[in-house]
Amino acid sequence: MPFHSHVLKNGLQVIGETSPSARSVALGFFVRTGSRDETSDVAGVTHFLEHMVFKGTPRRTALDVNRDFDRIGAHYNAFTSEENTVFYAAILPEYIPQAIDILADILRPSLRVDDFEMEKNVIIEEIGMYEDQPMWSAYDHAKRIFFADHPLGNTVLGTPASIRALGRDQMHSYFERRYVAPNITAVAAGHFDWDAFVAEIEEKCGSWAQGPIGRQSVYETPGSGKFRVLTKEKVTQEHVILMSPAPSADSLLRYSADTLALSIGDDSGSRLYWALVDPGLADSADSSFHDCEGTGSFCTSFSCEPGQAQEDLEIVHEVLEDVQKKGITDAELEQAKSKIGSRVVRGSERPMGRMQAIGMSWTYLHQYRTVDEELKAFDAVSLNSIREVLERYPINRVTTLALGPLETLSPPEHNGKK
Amino acid sequence: MPFHSHVLKNGLQVIGETSPSARSVALGFFVRTGSRDETSDVAGVTHFLEHMVFKGTPRRTALDVNRDFDRIGAHYNAFTSEENTVFYAAILPEYIPQAIDILADILRPSLRVDDFEMEKNVIIEEIGMYEDQPMWSAYDHAKRIFFADHPLGNTVLGTPASIRALGRDQMHSYFERRYVAPNITAVAAGHFDWDAFVAEIEEKCGSWAQGPIGRQSVYETPGSGKFRVLTKEKVTQEHVILMSPAPSADSLLRYSADTLALSIGDDSGSRLYWALVDPGLADSADSSFHDCEGTGSFCTSFSCEPGQAQEDLEIVHEVLEDVQKKGITDAELEQAKSKIGSRVVRGSERPMGRMQAIGMSWTYLHQYRTVDEELKAFDAVSLNSIREVLERYPINRVTTLALGPLETLSPPEHNGKK
Repeated sequence: MPFHSHVLKNGLQVIGETSPSARSVALGFFVRTGSRDETSDVAGVTHFLEHMVFKGTPRRTALDVNRDFDRIGAHYNAFTSEENTVFYAAILPEYIPQAIDILADILRPSLRVDDFEMEKNVIIEEIGMYEDQPMWSAYDHAKRIFFADHPLGNTVLGTPASIRALGRDQMHSYFERRYVAPNITAVAAGHFDWDAFVAEIEEKCGSWAQGPIGRQSVYETPGSGKFRVLTKEKVTQEHVILMSPAPSADSLLRYSADTLALSIGDDSGSRLYWALVDPGLADSADSSFHDCEGTGSFCTSFSCEPGQAQEDLEIVHEVLEDVQKKGITDAELEQAKSKIGSRVVRGSERPMGRMQAIGMSWTYLHQYRTVDEELKAFDAVSLNSIREVLERYPINRVTTLALGPLETLSPPEHNGKK
Repeated sequence: MPFHSHVLKNGLQVIGETSPSARSVALGFFVRTGSRDETSDVAGVTHFLEHMVFKGTPRRTALDVNRDFDRIGAHYNAFTSEENTVFYAAILPEYIPQAIDILADILRPSLRVDDFEMEKNVIIEEIGMYEDQPMWSAYDHAKRIFFADHPLGNTVLGTPASIRALGRDQMHSYFERRYVAPNITAVAAGHFDWDAFVAEIEEKCGSWAQGPIGRQSVYETPGSGKFRVLTKEKVTQEHVILMSPAPSADSLLRYSADTLALSIGDDSGSRLYWALVDPGLADSADSSFHDCEGTGSFCTSFSCEPGQAQEDLEIVHEVLEDVQKKGITDAELEQAKSKIGSRVVRGSERPMGRMQAIGMSWTYLHQYRTVDEELKAFDAVSLNSIREVLERYPINRVTTLALGPLETLSPPEHNGKK
């Protein structure tokens, strides 16, 4: 699957991986901006702007955007994270020119005041909807407490108050600062012609403004180490999140960190699975590794009946202490590698999977990696490299957040106990 | 992508679609049994049995099952619906013999009393977890009210009381009745050798018992037409579900019904999207078509702030009345077809997608359909065939369930009003 890359004169990056046996193509625009690029007076502006991008341009009303995508049967959407805003569409190859025309057009949105005020309701509804998803809400609070004054702790959605207070011109100036050409990568994967793709992007995006692509506060953080209980009587189960420091997206240790997280908290056959889920002590338990620009985090979470939370929390601490002290076993490492090999191969089977993978790799590292190179990098993970991760990023240095009906929960006394 | 099928002497069906360019393979066992095959004294037994299948056999403890899957890096799981219990694994091709060995072994589970009693906690935790997902909970109640005394209204999970009361021998006799060879289809899709696959299945499953594969109450139902409000103070948003009758899985009208549902309630560019989501009157709105053995249902749902629910409900009624009276437009039909074409192609891009598609088609219809045949069947949908769906299955004949903080909500007076 040949890879291609190109840079427009204004700095916009264009990359693509062609796969002639595919029957569809996935296109994406990766804008390197997220909630970490916000100041508190515009909390939630990145995500709100993502919505506004679909609300029309000088050439298209919101209705036109939707209808034009729908007419070509596009599976299209966007997402906003702490670091990225990504717009994408999966389509049949015959619709590539139309899809690029729509995507490139909407990325220069009009931000009309009427649409802006109307869309505030949608955003506030969305915030309400997530309130009904306690694990999501718990993670949002946990991030805030873990990252403390580091902007990675910013909430992605904002609050009803911050959204209501936001002005259209504030959004426009954020747009002009962050949606500059050098901060954007156009990506294609699947069945498409590279030269035609570059020509289309050149035509539609060649006039986009340049500008600096700085980012505030890119530094490593070990997390606050705090312990918080948020009482929410409306929630049935107790939701507990433990965050600890981890390598950043450009660290060579990221493959080892990912493998370690899988070994501890994959949804089957992991340490936490056997300790909590299999015996019915929790209804879910999970560990994952999040790599960001300049820093990272391990996140371990579980949910259970409130009366079970204290014991479960102690069990999780024991697991993390044990891993910190002894690492994982050879058998656990081999098992994790088999799982990751299978996951990498399966994740690469659709154009959409490849588009996301090469787009993220380019955004963070300006690097292209084949599926086989990814497999080799995971295969090189060793007990030693996992030991190195633990030494530099102690997994037992936890920041804890519990959300649910409980009024109190005690931090286990683990230091020096075992 | 060549298709193959074979029937073992005991009646077990074996099917496969080989795709040499794939890098992985998906295997599945489709057991034609679900909550509709339960009597009220064993409510939840099908789903509980699905869990027990992973708890071990004479050859394997629960730990062995998990470890053996994990050792080969399998992405494996199972799900239980009203009509089917499906066990599956996606793996790299070199692990096919091990994967079949595990899957075939666990499908003859020991159902040990200790494991059985322990697993009750997990099931009860799972019921609690879904309680925290109001739309899921609303759908469970809506089904019960729509289907009334038809067994498709049975809850899949059961209740904490029904699970606590269930005995191991009751589960065992359900297993012996429903997990008979002729009620099971073994399926493979992706990169594999058909002859070797059949030989493995023959060896591992050839001795499984035969038995009748009857199913109670296979008849068409128009739904009760009732209107219910379930007050749940813990829930923030109001969740409303409207169900109406629809064609069954073996009806030739199913393609038209699916297209109609997409046109009314797809998550972008549909009637409900423009009426509710785009203007911010609801945070979600959706229509879908569910085809079952002997009957079917349309399900329209939305969630919104409680104060908005009455108006939203009236808007949904207007949409359904209008569609019932006038059908959809030519432009809506063309748009729906583009979306479905793209969805069918993209859904076929992974072995897991094809495995599920051919397994379901075989379970319901003993029929294999290529991706192109599916595309043609959708392409043949016309305004006339959609009119036929509406005449036989009035979409405005709704059964309504609201779940959320509201204490009252009024059924709109729509009949003969417009």
